[in-house]
Parts: sequence; structure tokens; C-alpha cells
Amino acid sequence: MSEFFSVRTVAEALAGFRPRRRTAVIRVPIEESPGLAVTADVLAPLALPAFPRSAVDGYAVAAAATHGAGDSLPAYLRIVGAVSMGALPDVRVAGDGAAAIPTGGALPEGADAIAMVEHTSELGDGRIELSRALAVGDNVIRPGDDVAQGAPIARAGRALRPQEVGLLAAAGITEVEAYSRPLVAIVSTGDEVVPAGSDPLPGQVRDANSHALGALVRELGGGPWPLGIVADDPAQLERVCRAALERADVLVVSAGSSVGARDATAEVIGRLGEPGIWCHGLALKPGKPTLLAEVDGRPVIGLPGNPVSALVVMRLVGGPVIRLTAGITAPQPVRGRQAALARNVSSQAGRLDIVQVRLDGDQAVPLFGKASQLSIMTEADGYITIPDAVQGLAAGSDVTVELYG
Amino acid sequence: MSEFFSVRTVAEALAGFRPRRRTAVIRVPIEESPGLAVTADVLAPLALPAFPRSAVDGYAVAAAATHGAGDSLPAYLRIVGAVSMGALPDVRVAGDGAAAIPTGGALPEGADAIAMVEHTSELGDGRIELSRALAVGDNVIRPGDDVAQGAPIARAGRALRPQEVGLLAAAGITEVEAYSRPLVAIVSTGDEVVPAGSDPLPGQVRDANSHALGALVRELGGGPWPLGIVADDPAQLERVCRAALERADVLVVSAGSSVGARDATAEVIGRLGEPGIWCHGLALKPGKPTLLAEVDGRPVIGLPGNPVSALVVMRLVGGPVIRLTAGITAPQPVRGRQAALARNVSSQAGRLDIVQVRLDGDQAVPLFGKASQLSIMTEADGYITIPDAVQGLAAGSDVTVELYG
Repeated sequence: MSEFFSVRTVAEALAGFRPRRRTAVIRVPIEESPGLAVTADVLAPLALPAFPRSAVDGYAVAAAATHGAGDSLPAYLRIVGAVSMGALPDVRVAGDGAAAIPTGGALPEGADAIAMVEHTSELGDGRIELSRALAVGDNVIRPGDDVAQGAPIARAGRALRPQEVGLLAAAGITEVEAYSRPLVAIVSTGDEVVPAGSDPLPGQVRDANSHALGALVRELGGGPWPLGIVADDPAQLERVCRAALERADVLVVSAGSSVGARDATAEVIGRLGEPGIWCHGLALKPGKPTLLAEVDGRPVIGLPGNPVSALVVMRLVGGPVIRLTAGITAPQPVRGRQAALARNVSSQAGRLDIVQVRLDGDQAVPLFGKASQLSIMTEADGYITIPDAVQGLAAGSDVTVELYG
Repeated sequence: MSEFFSVRTVAEALAGFRPRRRTAVIRVPIEESPGLAVTADVLAPLALPAFPRSAVDGYAVAAAATHGAGDSLPAYLRIVGAVSMGALPDVRVAGDGAAAIPTGGALPEGADAIAMVEHTSELGDGRIELSRALAVGDNVIRPGDDVAQGAPIARAGRALRPQEVGLLAAAGITEVEAYSRPLVAIVSTGDEVVPAGSDPLPGQVRDANSHALGALVRELGGGPWPLGIVADDPAQLERVCRAALERADVLVVSAGSSVGARDATAEVIGRLGEPGIWCHGLALKPGKPTLLAEVDGRPVIGLPGNPVSALVVMRLVGGPVIRLTAGITAPQPVRGRQAALARNVSSQAGRLDIVQVRLDGDQAVPLFGKASQLSIMTEADGYITIPDAVQGLAAGSDVTVELYG
């Protein structure tokens, strides 16, 4: 076991705990790619659009034929045909010719601008009247206007979003090389813990953590692999953890709640491999008894046994770890909602405090209770963060509520 | 076709477009329930915890035996045994007895408070010294402290989150009755549109919308059902839409981009069933050519053909519609990030403007370009909303950036 035990701040953990292994690289159809990161920037193999297109419904014309046109002195143009969608125009524009064209239609040869239909009227004798002068390129989408050939359309280090998927499809790229979704093994420990589907005897409690953590892992972009409950038996826990690490990308162990059970879990995790334990304790409330370790490049997260603490730590620290494992290195900006704190909240300097809150209009109402109360979290709409350096917040303070779900 | 055509504001659409059909009701294991809404409040079948537990590592005692104890005058208590995790205590506390107890251990008979281990020291002669007086209930989690019997642990109308899943497991509920994930049929139309995997001829473009919308539908909580590309042929489009509505919970049609193609799509959607078209046009930029219809209780969304507009409308209006169909009626609060607008943005009063932005530190940099440029959206970190009543925003304005991904 590494001898370098220490309590770290959450900021230190986020900046410094960077296990090096990534998930397997797979080729994946773009339909299944959202949320995954490509292994290298994907560059546009060709310009988009590939041909000049009309941005409006109207008439393709030669801009020169419209010079000087205006409301009082319209230009008169001859209709020479129409452009059909999806086909190469079989019409040519020259001199005072004008070809009807729908939005998205390909610019016919000889045309260099589009007159909007709103600025024209058909005269009924094969001509239109145009009340605006046009410059070359007006209402024309040129080749490469959306994406130039060779420009990046999806960047390494960022999760793919619907818009990247659309641009990949537009460029004819239907498969990408990406880091696979991390497989996150989840182990619950504790002599008192029994499966959720069983009837606990007096003194026993059902396993809430495996289920809650599984749901959260999925929300954070991982694939949960629940490995069930392990009694407080270090040898058995070690066997289960070693087996998990042969397949899993991340190992999460929800430790027992007593100091003795936690110490035993820490010892097992410390034995799993090198470099071993990175931090033993986070300056975080709730969530102090958190353990972070790297085993042969893979992250191992020892969570407090208390379900509220486990969920707080998994979201705050486990989320970035899961993303890193999947090659998502771009930081995720805080997304929340501004609100006014409804009551004073005390806090201790030197640690990060997470306070569950309910939104009531523009007010954030802090929800207090025993740390073990999962019901506090089911009543909450989100949480606020009180930074290490701050000793409490006064009622009325402007806070950012990070929202759940 | 309904004769009641009109342009509506986005606020009117969100408040007034409420198709009545819900997705099928299923019984689902709690593992698969996150994101779904239960059909009725789920109440706790029993109190949680079910037995009195210790909140700390320490000694279970009778509070009366500690009266008057303090640093200068400690109480001396006899160790009478220890409580094991997960078992009914086989020890009884009486008089000045004290039983060692781990966090989460069941309170032994006769004890009514727990002395924290930090306030005690073992004397080595079978006794402990305690430097604090305790009141009845100190450091004890009582039955029902987390959830009282009959209290709601998951509420109808809200998507289940990890914390509800945990509480359901703790209560022994491993399956719930919930609205299933909406099946969202996606139809792309346009004579110019060819599959992403094909080589377009001049004048043709690849189908970006099906793929981008599929990814977004998944993000919004639906299951995408891509039905491919339909040419601008009203009879064929009608056949495809009718077949889709036999199974799908929501039908999304990405219309052609020209006025003619849009009108044809609107006519088909208007023929699909009663009550028919609810609005034809949204006071929204981009996204004006949006069509909302209700067909036998099911929502049909006609999206602009332009991929950026289609994604904007689908997120803004399609998201709430998908959630409603799945029985999620709780409003989703805006989640964003405060930033200062880096440049002036103009906007027209009377419509909602959606402006794509890139975050640069605390600045939101608006990204302008032609509406057809999906690359604007791949460069964006999120978007800002300029309300109907506002005519533009000045540089430096405080804005909320709704973040992607």
C-alpha cells in the first residue's frame, strides 16, 4: 500500500487525480456516438455545401442585370426556366434571364445572385419585375460556407453532441473512432447490507447504494456493472475487486459506514496495485471518507457508505473521472440556476460544503437533516456549493443551484 | 385540415400545446427507471430506517448515566459488550453499562443515546471514561427519521433520479409502474436529400437531420425511430406518417426547406387526424416554419428543414412535448451559466431569438452566420435566449447561457 496518505481538497482531486488508462477504442456508427469522444479531430473530407445553393425562395439571376433597380425603377427579367430540388439545373442564366429557384436549390450556370421572391412579382408575360438591386453572392450559400474542406467537424476531448452528429452525417461520415463508454464496476460492502429484493432481518438494511450509484453512473456517461454485496471480509473483497479490474474501466467500492469497515476497505484498495492510493479523505462535507486510488492506470473510487455522501462524491469527483477515462478532457462548466439563499447556512472554512436545496420561485431553500437521510435528496431540486475559503453564507446571498435530472 | 392556422409564441406553445395521449404504462425494474415518471406517487410501505441505529462510531449508553459528565468530571461506564453490524444486538445496556457500537449498528435494548468514540477513552479495566453528558436520542437515528411510513418516496409527474432509485431500493421496491420512454418517429423529407452513407449527385445533400434529431431525441429522453427519407410526394409522405402513428408516441417530420415543400408537408400533417394543426408558425428565430399538430391525442411536430432551426425547435419545444408524453409534467427549470455578452446582438421585438454562443471565460461570444450553418452550432457551447419583448441586447449585458451536452 502506498504510504502517501493524505486528505486533499476537491479542487486538488479534480486537477491532480488523473489515472492514465483510457477505455477501449471502438468504431461506432454515428447513431451510437453521442456522449462519446472521438480519438482524434475529425476533419471535413470535402467542403460543405459542396455546390453553390440558394438561401431563399426566388430567382437566380446575374447580379449585373439588376444594377440600379429599386422600388421606383424596377428591373425587368425574363423567366428562362426553373431549378428543381436535388438535380443539377438544366437551365442557364445569361443577360436578363432569371430562373425560379427554391431554397436549397443548386445555383444554375451563369447566375451569381438570388432575388428573393418577396422582392419580385410575376408579370404574366414570362417576365418578372424586381424592385431591388443585387450584388454578386447575395442570398447564395457558397461551397464551403458551412465547413471548409479540412476544417474540424468533431474535436477530440469533447463528447459528441447532436450537432456534431448532424455535421458528420452531412459530410458522409457514418462511423467514427471513439473511446467506448466506461464500464463502471460497483461493489457494495457491509455485513449489514442485504439485496433490495430481500426481507432484512433486524439490524440489516437493504442495498440502496448499488442501485442509486448505478443510475448515477449511467447519467454520468458510464455503463454500470453492479457486482452485488460483499461482506466485511477483506480477502473476499480483494478477490471481487481484482476480478472487477480485469474488465472494468473504473471500480467503485461503496465502503461500510463504520471507521473499522472503512479502514479495512482502504487496506484492500491499497493492495490492488501500483501506484495505489492517491488520497485518503476529501475536504468535503458530506463525503470526507473518500478514497481515490490508481491501479495500473485505472481509477478506483472508495465511496462513503452513507448513500447521500456516496451520491455527492460520485457526482462531484466520479463524474470527471468517468469522463476522463472516456477521453473527455474538456472541462464541464457549472450549469445551474441563480437563486437567493432563503436562510443562513453555516460552513467550516477549509472544506467544500454541499448543501441540498429546494427551489421555491427565485429562492433556494436549504434542506438540512441527518447526513443519512436520502429523503433530503429526493426533496431537493439541486445543490449549492460553499467554497473552501468561505465560512457560511448569509440569507439572501446570490447562489448558483446545480440542478438534478 | 383544421382551419385554425396561426403563428404562436413559444410561450403559448409550451403552455397551450398539450396533446393528451401518454406512453404505455409498463412495470419496470428500478435499474431501468431513471428518467421515467411513475404513474402515481410511490409511498413508503414501512418506516426507514426500520430500527433505531447509531449515527456514529461509539458506545450505546443510557443517557441518564451520563448526567453531569464533562471534561473536568467525566462519567465512568462499564463495557458490557459490543454490537455487531447486521445483527440484532445480543447485549443489553442498563445502569452504567456501555456497549461498543459501529456507525449504522442497531441500538441495543436499554440504550437511548450514543457516546461518540471521540469523547471517550478506554481505561483498560473494562471501563470507559466519557467527557460529555448526553440527552436521550443523541446520535441515534430513529425509525422513520429518513422516511415515515406512507410518505412519498417518488412522485408522479417527475422523472426518477438516482436518489429516488436509492430510496426505492432501501424500501424494498424493486419494480415500479411508469410511463415508458416515448418512441419518436423521425421522417426526413426532400427530393434533394439522400442517405448519409451515399454519394450525393450534384444538387443533392446528405441527410443530416435524421441523425442529428435522433441524437437529440435520445438526449431529451425519447427513443428515436428513424424512418428514413421521403421524397416531396404528399401521398407517400401521408402513408409513412400514418404508419408511424400506429406505433410512435411522437411524430417528427423535418420538412423541406422551400415554401412549396413546407406547404405540402403542412397539408399532409393537417390531413392525418383530429383535432389537427394547432399552430402553423412560431414567433421564433431560427425556427419560424414550425408546425404543431395533435392527431388522435398524439403530438406531431413539423420542423424546418434547416438543420440548425430543426435542432433549436426540437430542443425548445420538442423536449417539453416528449416529457409531457411520458407523464413528466413538472417544469424543467432553465439551467445555464451566467455570462457577460461580448457583443451587441440585435433582435426583433415580438419573437424569441435564439443566439448560439461560445464561452470565453466569463464572456458569452455570440456566433453569427447563415442560418444553414450547422458549424455555428458545433462551435457553440450553448445558446442565449432574447425574449419576445426585447429589441436586442447590448454588449456587457448579463445573460444566461444554456449549455449543450
